[in-house]
Amino acid sequence: MSGERDTTHLLRSAPALLEAYRTGTADPVEVTRLSLGTLRQAHRTLNCTVVFLEEQAFAAAEESRRRWREGRPRSLEGLPFGIKDVFDLAGAVTTGGSRVHRDRVATETAEAVRRLLDAGAVPVSKDATTEWAIGGPHNPLHGAVRNPWDTRRWAGGSSTGSAAAVAAGAFPFALASDAGGSIRIPSAYCGVTGLKPTNGLVSRHGALPLSWTTESVGPIAASAVDAAMMLAVVAGHDPRDPQSLPAGFAGTGVVDDRLDGVRVGLPGGYFTDGCDAAVLAAFDGLLTTLMDLGAEVVDVAVPSAHAAHHIGYHVLFTEAWTVHAAQAASFADYDPVGLRRMARGSATSARDYLRMLAFRHELQRELEDAFALADVLVMPGTPAAAATLDDLCVTVDGVKVPMYAAQSRATIICNLSGVPALMMPTGFTPDGLPVAAQVVAPPLREDLCLRVGAAFQGATDLYGLDPIVPAAD
Amino acid sequence: MSGERDTTHLLRSAPALLEAYRTGTADPVEVTRLSLGTLRQAHRTLNCTVVFLEEQAFAAAEESRRRWREGRPRSLEGLPFGIKDVFDLAGAVTTGGSRVHRDRVATETAEAVRRLLDAGAVPVSKDATTEWAIGGPHNPLHGAVRNPWDTRRWAGGSSTGSAAAVAAGAFPFALASDAGGSIRIPSAYCGVTGLKPTNGLVSRHGALPLSWTTESVGPIAASAVDAAMMLAVVAGHDPRDPQSLPAGFAGTGVVDDRLDGVRVGLPGGYFTDGCDAAVLAAFDGLLTTLMDLGAEVVDVAVPSAHAAHHIGYHVLFTEAWTVHAAQAASFADYDPVGLRRMARGSATSARDYLRMLAFRHELQRELEDAFALADVLVMPGTPAAAATLDDLCVTVDGVKVPMYAAQSRATIICNLSGVPALMMPTGFTPDGLPVAAQVVAPPLREDLCLRVGAAFQGATDLYGLDPIVPAAD
Repeated sequence: MSGERDTTHLLRSAPALLEAYRTGTADPVEVTRLSLGTLRQAHRTLNCTVVFLEEQAFAAAEESRRRWREGRPRSLEGLPFGIKDVFDLAGAVTTGGSRVHRDRVATETAEAVRRLLDAGAVPVSKDATTEWAIGGPHNPLHGAVRNPWDTRRWAGGSSTGSAAAVAAGAFPFALASDAGGSIRIPSAYCGVTGLKPTNGLVSRHGALPLSWTTESVGPIAASAVDAAMMLAVVAGHDPRDPQSLPAGFAGTGVVDDRLDGVRVGLPGGYFTDGCDAAVLAAFDGLLTTLMDLGAEVVDVAVPSAHAAHHIGYHVLFTEAWTVHAAQAASFADYDPVGLRRMARGSATSARDYLRMLAFRHELQRELEDAFALADVLVMPGTPAAAATLDDLCVTVDGVKVPMYAAQSRATIICNLSGVPALMMPTGFTPDGLPVAAQVVAPPLREDLCLRVGAAFQGATDLYGLDPIVPAAD
Repeated sequence: MSGERDTTHLLRSAPALLEAYRTGTADPVEVTRLSLGTLRQAHRTLNCTVVFLEEQAFAAAEESRRRWREGRPRSLEGLPFGIKDVFDLAGAVTTGGSRVHRDRVATETAEAVRRLLDAGAVPVSKDATTEWAIGGPHNPLHGAVRNPWDTRRWAGGSSTGSAAAVAAGAFPFALASDAGGSIRIPSAYCGVTGLKPTNGLVSRHGALPLSWTTESVGPIAASAVDAAMMLAVVAGHDPRDPQSLPAGFAGTGVVDDRLDGVRVGLPGGYFTDGCDAAVLAAFDGLLTTLMDLGAEVVDVAVPSAHAAHHIGYHVLFTEAWTVHAAQAASFADYDPVGLRRMARGSATSARDYLRMLAFRHELQRELEDAFALADVLVMPGTPAAAATLDDLCVTVDGVKVPMYAAQSRATIICNLSGVPALMMPTGFTPDGLPVAAQVVAPPLREDLCLRVGAAFQGATDLYGLDPIVPAAD
C-alpha cells in the first residue's frame, strides 16, 4: 500500500544511515551501490536522472569506508545525495536541462556541492531539471519527469528529478534551487520535504544563473531532519557569490517533540482561497496536530500576498531574460515554454524594475509585522496535488486549473521577500496523491521552519513516504 | 595669509573643543553662539545656509552645558554640527534645495541625525545642497554657494553648504551624503576632509532618496580625526534602511603617527591622466610624506576605472529618475540642470540596468584583487581645483574643461563599488586654491582611510585650514 512511511529503508533517513555506519551494520560502498541501483530502477519509470555518477560516487564511498573504519568520519560521511543539474561538479556535464549545454562539462565544482563533498557526502547523480530551471514539464532534451505517485502526472519543477529520486528512496537528500517554488512545488507534488533557505544563505557560485533577486539554493529531503543536516553543511558566506549574506545564520536548531510557546500565524485569505478540499482538510489536520503539540495559532495578515505573486514573477522573468538574452543566438534550441515565460520580462524598464524592488521592501515590512505576532506562518503549500502531464492542469474540487496559474501562489512570495520556507507533506487526496503545507519563518530563522516541521513529522510519521514506484515493465 | 592651519580656532577641532569643555575653558552655549555667529558671517559671503537652527541649537547647548557641569557628557557633547538639507530634523524644513519642497517641514528626525543628537552634538544649520543633491551649481531656490577660497568659484556639490561652512570654521563637522562624489568633491574644492563610508554603513532613513545603489551618508570635517569622531556615532545597522549593512564595521581605528607596514597602492593611469600639474605635484608630496611615515608604495591596476565612471552615472541617473518620475507633475519647478542629468536615466531598460549591476560586481572583484596587494589605494581627488561659477569649468594646465566631465573621475567608482573613500587636502595651486587626494580602502575598512589621513595630516598640518573669508562689505 502506498503512502506508508518506509521505516526499513536506510536511504530514506540520513540519521539512520549514519547510525548504521557507526555501528557497522551498513557500509558506504554497499549503500552507494544500493542508492545507484534504486535510482536506476526509478529512472526507468520516472526519467529522473541526467547522469549516474558511478565513478565519483564509488571513489567518494571508498574514502567514506576508510574514514568510518579509521573512526574519523565527517558530518555527512557516506551519505548519498543527488545534484540538480544546474550545479557544476568538476568532470561531469551540467546541461541545465538544455540542448544548448548538452555537452558542457564542468571544470570546477559549485561551492555548495564542494561543501557537501568536503563533509563526506557521496554524489550519486545529476538530477533532471526543467530547462534553465524555468522551462516547461516536457523538456526538449530529456522529456518529462514522471511523478512517483502517479506516472501520468508531473513531478513538479523545476527540481523535478531531485524530488522524484528522493521520493523513490534513492537518497535521503538532494541539492536543488528555487526561484519561484522550484524546491517546494516538486516536494509538494512528490510527497517529500523541501527547504528554500533565506536568499543569500547558501552560495550560488557554480550554479547556472537564473535570477539574482529571487533564487535560493537548498535541500530536497526525505524529512525536515534530513533537510537540516544538509543545510547545516551548505549554509554560510561565500565571497564569490555577490548576493551571499555575510553573517547571521541562526543554525538549523534543535529537534524538539513539543511546540509549546510557538506562535503559528495563519495568513489565510489569499493563501487558502482556491485550494482543493483535500488540501484544506490536510491543512486543518496540520493545525490540529500543531496545537496538540503545544503551539498557539494566531491570525496574521499579509495584504500584499496577491500582488507579490505577479510582481515576483515579473522580477524573476526580467532577470532571467537579462541572463539569457546574452545567448539569444541559441534561442532556436531553447524550450519554447521557458523562452515564452522569460520573454515576459524582455520589455521591463529599469524604472519599473526598481519600483518592483521597492514593492519588495514593502512586502518585507509587511512580513516583519506578521512575524511580530507569530514565530512562523503556515499555509497550504500548493492549491492542489500534482498536475497531469497531458494538459498541464491541476484539479481543484473537480475543476481543471492551468498549473502555472495556481501552483506557486504560496511559494514565490518567499522568493521575492527572501524569507525561508519549508514544504512538507500533510496528507493525501482521495486518489492517494500527496498534498503539502508550507512553514515560513523570518529571515535566517530556518531553525523555526525546521523545528515545526520535525515536530509535526515526528507526531504523524508523514515523512520518508514510500510511493511504491511501479516497475517499468 | 590664507592656507595656514588655524590652530587657535576651537571650531576647527572637535577634540580641542571637547578638551576645552572638560577643562572648563569653553562653554557649550558660548561655543554655539560663536558657531552661529561665524556661520552667519560666512553665509553673507558664501550663501551656504538654508536654515539657522537657533532654537534647537541653544536648547541642545543648554543641555550640553548641564551635562558637562554634572560630569556626565556624551561622546560628542556640545559639539556644533551642520546638516545637509536632505536630512530630516523634526520641526525644521527639509527643502532638498528645491522650490518643490520649499515649505516641507519634517515631522521625524533622520536616523543619522538622531544618533548625533543622542551623542550630545548641537545642530546649528541646515546646509545648502544642489537640488535633490543632483542639480546644478546655480540653485533655483537659493542660488549658488561660493567657495571660501575664491568667491568667483563654486564650493562643489552636492554638499555645497556643508563644505563651505566647515571651511569657514563654523563647525568641526557636518552630516552630508555622496552618490557620485557629493561629500568628496566639495571637500576637495573647499580644502576640508570628507569621508564617504562603505555603502550601507550609515543609515539613509529620513534622508531624501536619490540612488539606492550609489549613495552613502558621511561626514565633511575639518580633519580626518574629526571625521572619525562623527563616523563612530552615525555608523551602524538600521532595520528601517533596506540597504543598511547588518554588521561588519571595523570601527574608526586608532590614530598613529607612523604608517610602518601600510601598503599604499597606486592605480595611476586613468586616475592621474588629465590632472593639473598642481594636483600632481601635491600628490607627489603626499606620496613622499607617506613613505617618510613608513608606508610602502606599490603599483596596482583597476582596468575598469574608466568604464566605472560612465556606468556609475548611468546607474545613478536611472535610479534618480525612478525616484523623481513619481513627482513629474512638479518638473516645471525643478532645476533644469538636475532634471536634464537624471533624464539620461529615463530610458534605461531593466536588462541594461541589471547588466550594469553585473559590471559592478566585476568592478568589486577588480578592487579585491588590488586590495590583495595594497591596504589602501591613493589617487588625485579631483583633476583640478574648484570650478568657476560663470562658465562651470575647471582649469587643467591652463585649459578649461567642463566641470561635469572632469570632477568625479576618481570619486564615483567608490559609489558604484561601495568602498569607503577619504578626500583630504594635499596642497595648493599657484593661485592659492586647495587641491586634494583620495584614500580608498576595502569595504568596512574606514579605519584604514582614516589612519592614513590622520597620519598625513599630523605630519603636514594640512587640516583645519583657514581660507580667511573676505568680509561681505
